[in-house]
Amino acid sequence: MRRLPCIVVLRWKIMHSNNPKLALTLGDPAGIGPEIIVAGWHDIISKIPCKPIVYGHPEFLVRAMKLRGIKHEIQIIETPNQAEPSEEQIPCINTSSDDVLSIRSGEIDARAGEAAYHSIVTATVHALLKKVDALVTAPINKKSLNLAGCHHPGHTELIAERCGVTNFAMMLYIASSEQILSPAGLAVVHVTLHTALSKVFDEIRIDSILAKIRMAHEFMLPIKGTTPHIGVCSLNPHAGEMGLFGHEEMTCIEPAVKLAREEGIHVEGPFPADTIMVDAKNGRFDAVVAMFHDQGHIALKLLGMHNAVNITLGLPIIRTSVAHGTAFDRAWQGTADPGSMIEAVRIATILAKHPR
Amino acid sequence: MRRLPCIVVLRWKIMHSNNPKLALTLGDPAGIGPEIIVAGWHDIISKIPCKPIVYGHPEFLVRAMKLRGIKHEIQIIETPNQAEPSEEQIPCINTSSDDVLSIRSGEIDARAGEAAYHSIVTATVHALLKKVDALVTAPINKKSLNLAGCHHPGHTELIAERCGVTNFAMMLYIASSEQILSPAGLAVVHVTLHTALSKVFDEIRIDSILAKIRMAHEFMLPIKGTTPHIGVCSLNPHAGEMGLFGHEEMTCIEPAVKLAREEGIHVEGPFPADTIMVDAKNGRFDAVVAMFHDQGHIALKLLGMHNAVNITLGLPIIRTSVAHGTAFDRAWQGTADPGSMIEAVRIATILAKHPR
Repeated sequence: MRRLPCIVVLRWKIMHSNNPKLALTLGDPAGIGPEIIVAGWHDIISKIPCKPIVYGHPEFLVRAMKLRGIKHEIQIIETPNQAEPSEEQIPCINTSSDDVLSIRSGEIDARAGEAAYHSIVTATVHALLKKVDALVTAPINKKSLNLAGCHHPGHTELIAERCGVTNFAMMLYIASSEQILSPAGLAVVHVTLHTALSKVFDEIRIDSILAKIRMAHEFMLPIKGTTPHIGVCSLNPHAGEMGLFGHEEMTCIEPAVKLAREEGIHVEGPFPADTIMVDAKNGRFDAVVAMFHDQGHIALKLLGMHNAVNITLGLPIIRTSVAHGTAFDRAWQGTADPGSMIEAVRIATILAKHPR
Repeated sequence: MRRLPCIVVLRWKIMHSNNPKLALTLGDPAGIGPEIIVAGWHDIISKIPCKPIVYGHPEFLVRAMKLRGIKHEIQIIETPNQAEPSEEQIPCINTSSDDVLSIRSGEIDARAGEAAYHSIVTATVHALLKKVDALVTAPINKKSLNLAGCHHPGHTELIAERCGVTNFAMMLYIASSEQILSPAGLAVVHVTLHTALSKVFDEIRIDSILAKIRMAHEFMLPIKGTTPHIGVCSLNPHAGEMGLFGHEEMTCIEPAVKLAREEGIHVEGPFPADTIMVDAKNGRFDAVVAMFHDQGHIALKLLGMHNAVNITLGLPIIRTSVAHGTAFDRAWQGTADPGSMIEAVRIATILAKHPR
C-alpha cells in the first residue's frame, strides 16, 4: 500500500515530461539496427522532444558511425538518469559482453542473439521500473535469439513475458505523407493475424472485433489529439452483398461497430476492404480495423511500409518498434533507411507524453 | 463444312488488320458512358490504330459533346463496314428507340436499361458475325437492366449467354505507369471472386489455379510481346509459414505452379500476397494470380483502379470494359475521366491484332 502514491507521482511525472526518456535497443548487431540508430540520431535529437538512450554494445555505434561518416561522442552510462543525449553525444548503456564484437555482419550467430536478448531484457526492466518512459526496439533475428537459448517466437513475446502479460496486440502505423492524407497518419489493427485463413472464422466474434476497435481508438486519440475516425473492414467481398457473399458482416461486425458507437467511439463499417483502404489513404479514416492479415498488410506494404511503426498494445509499458526486419542482406553497407526508427521514436514520445 | 474456310480467312484477316473495328457500347445513357466515349475520342483516334464505332442512341453523343465543349460530326451508319471514324467524326449505329431521350441523368430507368441492353446485344451479335473485331463496353446499371426485363446479374453474364458460354473469367489490367513499373503493365486474375470467404476453400484446387495461371499467361503474351512473368499469391499469411498457417500452399498452389512451369509458363510462387503486390508494382511480375477477391482488389484499387480495364476471358469474342461503374452521382456533370475507356480500347486493339 505504501508504494501506490509513489507510483502515481511517478506516472504523473512521466505523463507531463516534455522529454521522455526512451530506451533504444540496438537489436541484432549483425543487422541494420546500429546503423539506423546512428543514421537517425540527428533527426531524432533535433526534431523529437525526447531523451534517447541506446541499450547495447557501444562499439557497434562506433562502427556504424564510421560506416556512415557520422561523428558523435558515445556517453557510456550505467543508469538512464545519467543520460545527456545531444547532437554531440549518444548515451549508451552497455548490456553486452565483448564476445559479440567478433560476429560477422548479416550472419546468424548465438552471440548476436544473446547481445540482442540482454539489450531487450535490460530495457524492459528499466521501463517497468520507470527508469525510462518507453521502449523503442530495433530488429532482431529470431534464429540467433533461439540459438542463444531464448525460445520465444519473437521480440514481442519476450517483452510480454517479462511484463507478465499474455494478451497483447500489434498495431501498425504510418505517418501522414503523400500516400496517407490523414494529418494524423493511419493505424491498422488486425482482428486476426498470424493464423491460417481457414481458422479466421473462429476468431471473428463481436467481442474480438470490439476489442480491436477500442484499441484503435485509444491508440489514435493521443496521436490525433481529437477523436479519431475509425473504419472497419468487412470480412467478405463487397461487405457480403447483404448476405449473398457471407453473413459475418451482419452477425459479428455490424453488432461490434454498434456497441463501439454506443461507447462514444467514432467508428463506421463494415466497408468492403478494397474501398476502405482507398478511403483511408485519402484521409477519410485515421485507423482501420482489418479482419485478417492480408487485408491490412497488402495495403500497408503498398502505402509505404518502410516508414511504418509497429506498436505493441496491451503491455504495462510503452513499446514501439521498426516495422522491418534485420535486413541481413543489406546490413553494414551504409545504405539502411532510418525512417522507420525515427517514426518509432516519434510515436513512442507522443505516447509517453500522453496520460494513459 | 463449307463455312470453315471462310471463317479461317476472316479470322486471318482480322488477326492482321492494322485497324481492327471496335464496337463501343454506350452503356447506360443516364451514367457517364456517353461522356467518357466523347471525352476519350481524340486520344483513341490519334493514338490507337483502330476503327471505333459507337453502339447506342447518337443523341447522347451530341449531348455529351455539348457538355464537354467538344465538336465532332456524328456519322449515322447501318453496318460497321460503313464506318469512317476520324478526328472529325464519330460513327454511330443507333440501337435505341427515341423513348430513351427523356430519361434523366443519374436515375434508374427501364428505358435506359433497355437502351443499354440493345446496344450490348447488337454489338455482341456483330462481334460473333465478325462484323467487328472486338467489343468495348461502357458501364451499365444492373437495376435499370433488370427493370427492362433483362435478369442477368450483369453485363458479362448477358454477353456470355449470347455467346453460348458458361465458363468465363474476369481479368483486371492496369497499364504501366508511375504506380506500375512493369513496361507491360499488370494483370490480375482471381481464382475465386464473388463468393463468401468461407466458401473460398472449396474452390482452391490445383485445376482451378492452373486454369487461371494459363489465362494470365495467354492474356499477357500479346500485351507484353514476349513471355510474361507471372506471380502466384499464397492463400495464407506468410505463404503458410511451411504449414504453420495453413496447408493449401503445399497441397494446391505449389503443384499448380509446378504443372504450369512444365507447360513452359514463366510462373513463380506461391508468395505472400502482401509482398507479391509490392514486387508486382515494382515491375517484377507482369501478372498476378490472386486466390480471392480482396487480395487482388485491395492492391488494384490502391494502384489506380480508375485506369484499370476489365477483360472477359473465355468468350469466343474479344471483350474489354471499363473497370468502373456508371457513377450516377457524378454523371452528366462534365467531369468524368475517360482514362479507363481509352485503356479498354487500347487493350481490345492489341488483342484483336494478335492471333488467338
